[in-house]
Amino acid sequence: MKTDKILLDHGSGGKIAHRLIADMLIPNFDNPILSQLDDGAVFDMGEQRLAFSTDTYVVDPIFFPGGCIGDLAINGTVNDLAMCGSTPLYLSTGLIIEEGFLIKDLEKILNMMRIAAHKAGVQVVTGDTKVVPKGAADKIFINTSGLGVISEQVNISSHRACIGDKIILSGSIADHGMAILTQREGLAFESTIQSDTAPLNRMVKRMLATYQDIHVLRDPTRGGVATALNEIAIQSSVGICVFEEKIPLNDNVAGI
Amino acid sequence: MKTDKILLDHGSGGKIAHRLIADMLIPNFDNPILSQLDDGAVFDMGEQRLAFSTDTYVVDPIFFPGGCIGDLAINGTVNDLAMCGSTPLYLSTGLIIEEGFLIKDLEKILNMMRIAAHKAGVQVVTGDTKVVPKGAADKIFINTSGLGVISEQVNISSHRACIGDKIILSGSIADHGMAILTQREGLAFESTIQSDTAPLNRMVKRMLATYQDIHVLRDPTRGGVATALNEIAIQSSVGICVFEEKIPLNDNVAGI
Repeated sequence: MKTDKILLDHGSGGKIAHRLIADMLIPNFDNPILSQLDDGAVFDMGEQRLAFSTDTYVVDPIFFPGGCIGDLAINGTVNDLAMCGSTPLYLSTGLIIEEGFLIKDLEKILNMMRIAAHKAGVQVVTGDTKVVPKGAADKIFINTSGLGVISEQVNISSHRACIGDKIILSGSIADHGMAILTQREGLAFESTIQSDTAPLNRMVKRMLATYQDIHVLRDPTRGGVATALNEIAIQSSVGICVFEEKIPLNDNVAGI
Repeated sequence: MKTDKILLDHGSGGKIAHRLIADMLIPNFDNPILSQLDDGAVFDMGEQRLAFSTDTYVVDPIFFPGGCIGDLAINGTVNDLAMCGSTPLYLSTGLIIEEGFLIKDLEKILNMMRIAAHKAGVQVVTGDTKVVPKGAADKIFINTSGLGVISEQVNISSHRACIGDKIILSGSIADHGMAILTQREGLAFESTIQSDTAPLNRMVKRMLATYQDIHVLRDPTRGGVATALNEIAIQSSVGICVFEEKIPLNDNVAGI
């Protein structure tokens, strides 16, 4: 679809979003590192291989069952770094806060960021806050960027899926998305669905300790598992066969 | 002043903003690197000393005489890294775009980011875009984070100002602020004031090539030179004497 304006779908993580990034960001900032299009950039700096990643969180509602925008922002960048096979070490955070935002909510969010950073074993080493006039932003937006270090033997990339590779899901799908949706729409269900936001770096560390030559890792976010698999299929030039009945799904999520 | 809500002044770069950061960010993320409160975090990674910095740009208007939010975002983080005495190398960018934003304006902004990155000699290696519903953000916000590498002999910090140090300004003050103000308020002046947004990393490189033991560097942004000097005075526990008549000021800026 041709359009001269940015649409909400441009941010959905689906095909249009892919085209927006491919059509606009890559030609402008073209370089071999960016063009990899992984969850983070991977490059050498001196003797070390580093992963560098950024993500902005605009989730609405900002508080939801199982978490809030703050721990989500920490976990998201920790996980993007872990998905590059790196050990996440240092994070930055940039806050955009709407005038009139309650200081007690900000305290709650920062406290949940602190706990999440502690759980993941990362340090928030630099930060920035901007306040915009009432109506110029929706409550609070949080950017986190992060740095991790990659062991020499590890080489994980969405370009490395091969014929014969198996897909392993670490948990049930769609819990976070449905937690947000039910909260946002004020839908009442018998059991509240909790977001499964969590740092995955320790799990990845254990996986790499068991087997170093993992080809691809992905933390499905916008667009879910389907979009993640589609992106891997395109970037690795492989076909992926998914057995629907084998995808773990919690009963209350399946109910929706 | 006690308040239970975030005020616009919390983002002004003045005393209230200082208290917001000191009162809320530091206790939550307390670590020796963050507590330095320089323009960027400085730490060792393997054999190398790195600088890591983040900044979010919410400037209104997004296009102004002499630049736009895009080149401002690149130059700002390049300069924060340069002010740590580092050579800026890699940048990330996170965009928050309001639904309905014109694609041609986004193209213009990305193009100016590309030119600014090229001028500064840095690479944008990772990026993220989020689209929020109409009214949930004011047109576009841009976060940039960046990484630079610091030579062994360099030790620049806002804690290092000493008795006897001299202040050197690299140019006239308030050009950028007045360019934004006059554009925002639709004020008509005989001569248009241009923002002086520019990358300063090559200038810092030349300075360090001439004399390595520079104590403090600062790129005054919100709050201008006055706030920058106040922060240095506090962090270095020194008094600073400023001779107003020696501060370079363009005639058209002085006129306002």
